[in-house]
Amino acid sequence: MEAISQIEEQALAASKAARELATVTTQVKNEALKAMAEALCLCKNYILAENKADMESGRQNGMRESMLDRLMLTEGRIEAMAEGLRQVGELSDPVGEIVSGRKLANGLVVTKVRVPLGVVAIIYEARPNVTADAVGLCIKSGNAVVLKGGSEAIRSNKAIASVLTDAAEAAGIPKGSIQFIDSTDRAAVQQLIRMDSYLDVVIPRGGAGLIKMVVQNSSVPVIETGIGVCHTFVDESADPAMAEEIAFNAKVSRPAVCNAMETLLVHEKISAQFLPAMLNRYCEAGVEIFGCRATRALDARVQAATEEDWRTEYGDLRLSVKIVRNLDEAIAHIAEYGTKHSEAIVTKCYDNARLFQERVDAAAVYVNASTRFTDGFEFGFGAEIGISTQKLHARGPMALPELTSVKYLINGTGQIRG
Amino acid sequence: MEAISQIEEQALAASKAARELATVTTQVKNEALKAMAEALCLCKNYILAENKADMESGRQNGMRESMLDRLMLTEGRIEAMAEGLRQVGELSDPVGEIVSGRKLANGLVVTKVRVPLGVVAIIYEARPNVTADAVGLCIKSGNAVVLKGGSEAIRSNKAIASVLTDAAEAAGIPKGSIQFIDSTDRAAVQQLIRMDSYLDVVIPRGGAGLIKMVVQNSSVPVIETGIGVCHTFVDESADPAMAEEIAFNAKVSRPAVCNAMETLLVHEKISAQFLPAMLNRYCEAGVEIFGCRATRALDARVQAATEEDWRTEYGDLRLSVKIVRNLDEAIAHIAEYGTKHSEAIVTKCYDNARLFQERVDAAAVYVNASTRFTDGFEFGFGAEIGISTQKLHARGPMALPELTSVKYLINGTGQIRG
Repeated sequence: MEAISQIEEQALAASKAARELATVTTQVKNEALKAMAEALCLCKNYILAENKADMESGRQNGMRESMLDRLMLTEGRIEAMAEGLRQVGELSDPVGEIVSGRKLANGLVVTKVRVPLGVVAIIYEARPNVTADAVGLCIKSGNAVVLKGGSEAIRSNKAIASVLTDAAEAAGIPKGSIQFIDSTDRAAVQQLIRMDSYLDVVIPRGGAGLIKMVVQNSSVPVIETGIGVCHTFVDESADPAMAEEIAFNAKVSRPAVCNAMETLLVHEKISAQFLPAMLNRYCEAGVEIFGCRATRALDARVQAATEEDWRTEYGDLRLSVKIVRNLDEAIAHIAEYGTKHSEAIVTKCYDNARLFQERVDAAAVYVNASTRFTDGFEFGFGAEIGISTQKLHARGPMALPELTSVKYLINGTGQIRG
Repeated sequence: MEAISQIEEQALAASKAARELATVTTQVKNEALKAMAEALCLCKNYILAENKADMESGRQNGMRESMLDRLMLTEGRIEAMAEGLRQVGELSDPVGEIVSGRKLANGLVVTKVRVPLGVVAIIYEARPNVTADAVGLCIKSGNAVVLKGGSEAIRSNKAIASVLTDAAEAAGIPKGSIQFIDSTDRAAVQQLIRMDSYLDVVIPRGGAGLIKMVVQNSSVPVIETGIGVCHTFVDESADPAMAEEIAFNAKVSRPAVCNAMETLLVHEKISAQFLPAMLNRYCEAGVEIFGCRATRALDARVQAATEEDWRTEYGDLRLSVKIVRNLDEAIAHIAEYGTKHSEAIVTKCYDNARLFQERVDAAAVYVNASTRFTDGFEFGFGAEIGISTQKLHARGPMALPELTSVKYLINGTGQIRG
């Protein structure tokens, strides 16, 4: 018999645990979430010490300050993770929901019920809080979870995962339901995403490179998340003051996140009135601007945008700006360069609002609001495991129901098919 | 600039058409379906002539009779395709359905609406009627469709696709919405399933080999369909007469389809009473039996089952039979060898019925009925594009709603995020 790899062994163990976990009651799962939250707080010194070791390696390897900040844990951040687990405990359990049903003419009763997906693999980068978030959401939705975090955070992630695993098992969650891949080998990801016999879905969370690699190479179904080249289109009829507030918020309030704006599109008829003050405000806030020729003519600080700029998710205080002839050109630009995440129009025109929402193909399409609202918590879902930018299975912010599948139960009295 | 391949050109054209098709009204789509149905009937002599050429090539290449039967078109079969299109026209349009929505505390109104997936690629084998079925369901659900049929049916499929395309375009469906890949090259499939920039989903319909190849190599999201190693478990308390009818129907009524039973599991306490008459009935119906040792002891005509038998979707009048100690062993056997399609228990015991439906992980789990009912028409969906055996996006019989995604529309009055 062929020896199986460590990763295959873990994937197999998760798939066995998943069968049991699917039938664990909501009560047990909720108690486990409380116990996990408590364990995080009790073990915070251990977790902080492991995190300190990761931080030191990071500094030695010349990690950027912004990355170090994402990696760093504090007492407050650990308490926030615990609070997140408690909140997930309070959300309603999607498993067991009767979605629909009917009695057929032949007397068969067909019931469609919500069931866990089975095994969810999460592949993520620097932030250790993803470990706790993913475990909480997967356990609550009855899924076994396989965690593969970034090598920069390996000690922090391992500490969090081991604390959560012990607490969960003690509270009645089947052994094997939480699998942490303790490897910094990049080949581990490649191996993991070929385990289609054991894994039901893989969710990559991280940069465009990671996500593309997973999509191109996975034989396990993938949910693409979080790449956002988001646009705001300021239409001819926009209220300039409203447009300025929305466009400023969409770029500046938190530029590193996926729902931040990367490109501002402005109708040519309002550009001379709207853009000079807008560009000035951006420059004062430290935003570097890359613009089309017409935009550059309005402000000498604007650099020339290249074709590449329109496709770039800057993720920082940089912005591309383009003046367009009309709504159609704005929609065409978004279709060409957008990533189907979040798109906004600022307008007073009923028809243009309607056309924009109908024709723009994206997870979230806004009229007169900032794209920054695309978020599971803002939408009132109480949780978020990622923002899907694909169309299959889930689109937009994903919460607990998006971590489930369905099955049909058919109850008869001896029916056979004629 | 690099020259793009014929297939890439068609995928790109489909993705452009999909944007327009997404906003075509239900009225136009329904008229187009009627026109397509009429065109099929009007052009039946052309289609029959092309099909005759395929049949002749098939015979020359030594195609089996059962395959030739699947390939063959008749006036009646063309009329049935047309009738199918008319029926899809009468189903309600899933696009535009408002799935849910709410007004948030900050006044933003969030509405989740159903939208087309975009571009659906269907890769299928011998039966030319799939061409018409797939086009009808995709057009009704607002999706552009890329068709890649089997080489044995290339002339029939091309004829049907061209008749449908002309009729659809004349009725207002955007040009490019129906793309037929006119190639018998196997590499065409390989190329097609890497077009993730243009295609939103690929649905393979055919044998296990085709489906595995697509799952292993596609960078486009896949919906796995139709592989069914289905079981019926006759529990200790089963009514023997009911069990016999169900087990006979599940195997014999149409053995070539995916919801037919491949393995009969029998509780050891009822086996001596139940199996002799059952096995005799199968043998009289020409069913070849492969059984475990205990089954062979009951009837000399039973051949020895190998490990491979338990994994095999025979698709014909062959059946494997195993006597098991109890419910747990039956459930474990199904978990090990099943394909998560359709599974049945025959029992009078409330607890065993409940446990079987809870613990068996499959698209359709039956109590006291034949697995043959897993079908979009039988379930009352009015259509079927395939039966999903995966958990992501859709599970079980897929009809029009399963060919859609959603988008969030967010309407504000200037909201920005704090």
